[in-house]
Amino acid sequence: MPSYAIGVDLGGTNLRIAAVDDRGNLLEKTTLGTQVSRGRDFVVGEMVEAIRALALKLHKSGELKGIGIAVPGIIEMETGIVRKSPNLPDWTDYPVRSDIEKALGTSVILENDANAAALGEKWQGAARDFDSMCMITLGTGVGGGLVLDGKVWHGMNGMAGEIGHMNVEPEGVLCGCGSYGCLEQYASATAVVRMAKEAIATGADTELRRAAEPGNEEFNSRVVFQLAIQGDRAAHQIFDKVGRSLGRKIADLVNLLNLHMYVIGGGVSSAWEAFSPALFDELRKRSLVYVATTPQHPEGASPKGKHTIVTRALLGSDAGLFGAARLPLQQAEVVTTL
Amino acid sequence: MPSYAIGVDLGGTNLRIAAVDDRGNLLEKTTLGTQVSRGRDFVVGEMVEAIRALALKLHKSGELKGIGIAVPGIIEMETGIVRKSPNLPDWTDYPVRSDIEKALGTSVILENDANAAALGEKWQGAARDFDSMCMITLGTGVGGGLVLDGKVWHGMNGMAGEIGHMNVEPEGVLCGCGSYGCLEQYASATAVVRMAKEAIATGADTELRRAAEPGNEEFNSRVVFQLAIQGDRAAHQIFDKVGRSLGRKIADLVNLLNLHMYVIGGGVSSAWEAFSPALFDELRKRSLVYVATTPQHPEGASPKGKHTIVTRALLGSDAGLFGAARLPLQQAEVVTTL
Repeated sequence: MPSYAIGVDLGGTNLRIAAVDDRGNLLEKTTLGTQVSRGRDFVVGEMVEAIRALALKLHKSGELKGIGIAVPGIIEMETGIVRKSPNLPDWTDYPVRSDIEKALGTSVILENDANAAALGEKWQGAARDFDSMCMITLGTGVGGGLVLDGKVWHGMNGMAGEIGHMNVEPEGVLCGCGSYGCLEQYASATAVVRMAKEAIATGADTELRRAAEPGNEEFNSRVVFQLAIQGDRAAHQIFDKVGRSLGRKIADLVNLLNLHMYVIGGGVSSAWEAFSPALFDELRKRSLVYVATTPQHPEGASPKGKHTIVTRALLGSDAGLFGAARLPLQQAEVVTTL
Repeated sequence: MPSYAIGVDLGGTNLRIAAVDDRGNLLEKTTLGTQVSRGRDFVVGEMVEAIRALALKLHKSGELKGIGIAVPGIIEMETGIVRKSPNLPDWTDYPVRSDIEKALGTSVILENDANAAALGEKWQGAARDFDSMCMITLGTGVGGGLVLDGKVWHGMNGMAGEIGHMNVEPEGVLCGCGSYGCLEQYASATAVVRMAKEAIATGADTELRRAAEPGNEEFNSRVVFQLAIQGDRAAHQIFDKVGRSLGRKIADLVNLLNLHMYVIGGGVSSAWEAFSPALFDELRKRSLVYVATTPQHPEGASPKGKHTIVTRALLGSDAGLFGAARLPLQQAEVVTTL
């Protein structure tokens, strides 16, 4: 009988639950809205109920190896306490793991959502051929995760991977973290919309102004991207800035870590076509390690060769689900090989 | 009978060789000048002779576990070929490991010099209580090394740790690597002297001008440091810049890796008093992870606690020697525990 795990990806908008077998096949997937306003007990209750329903449905088709749960925010790995979660305001210092375990009657593995997405792309996505990789998720904010030798790198307090708060412009835009010029201020969906509004405010001749008028569809980063590929100069410059900022930061990561693969995911990564030329331009200018490890014709390079590869994520919004499901499977493998 | 290893630290100026026992006691140390101008065969010949002499001298006092050699430049770990070494011009694409092994009749372990210094400080220096650490060496250039879970992190091609070429100012000073504003341009001994000359050229009222006049002692970073602690404003500003640049970069490292300890070594680190206030000021402003992991009164913090510590190196110029000697001892331990 095959074995499988249940992965949960809890976001500020959606609560998603899936069963994935040990070969990485998605068996089942459910998406619920996250009713944040009804409080954490309600959200955890819904999650527990959905996990139970899924396990019941699959109980004859395989052995459940465990449950992994991806949660946004800063998690204390040892205790399973969420210290802070920007999208779940009443989750500060919340011992979520023990609450879930009490309700379910079994142990679960918690992980930060950006780390889970990195593990998912490493296991079944863009980085499946490599042991070590870095993932940058461009969403409302910018998240990051490192997988080194197959395992998520947590650092001493589980706070590693805050790539969104690495610096791009020392005197740049003020960030919520208190610093100035963090990557998040130039490469998130929020940043794209802010830069678009700034372009409109400067009085530039741009289609962005019309698109941002009240009464039109929601003015978001996708609208800016559409205008960029339609040739609007101001919109194009915004994605050029996104690409340069990412390129600068990835250059630092390549010089520091010399990993095989850097994966860009999240909603804004669908604008790859608009931002990637500037990204690679910066990377070539700024990283001696990138230049030394990149063949002149990347299309001729074997994916198993020792080259630096920067690429788009493959799993879309399922990355975190796959990563969450991977956690108990990985633990089971370790136990088996001991 | 105790066991020991021989460590070699090959620099552009000095060739140093030591015997260190498995508990980290320095048994013997020899320093020779590196006669780079006589060519690589001569340098390797001297090294081999000194290793043999040391092994002969100690052959009754313990078991030789192996030989580790720290070499400046980019080393291909699998083949033992030096790809490029700025201070050893005729070592480009030089298969130094096989040449040494042929001459000695035994195998040796090569390591990049900055990585060896990191491993030395981790084993017997400032980071001896921690499994994971980062070392930044401020010398003629700026070198870096990462030790993760006790082992040097090499990356896929052995090129990891190029912290000197991580970016501090995107539009800053042109670097030898082709980028602009690398850390090395603001925190190396070379950078300190360059900034001092720039200060003199601006016509500032500074003692630096007199110190730089021909006929005085060599105008180096130590002279600038002396003037800084004597209260010369221009000299002080230079070390403020050194500290801010380091602080910005360490903030990125803390946000990315969440390590226990970051160690600053190399000649310029003796100016700690002059540059560290600006370093910590930037770190507090720029790293949410640092702020979250630093108790308000660091002097009350236990060194084993889960706090981020940024500190000076302890082993001075011996760090690379200890690290080089550690390599075969570490390998022997792994073999034993398998």
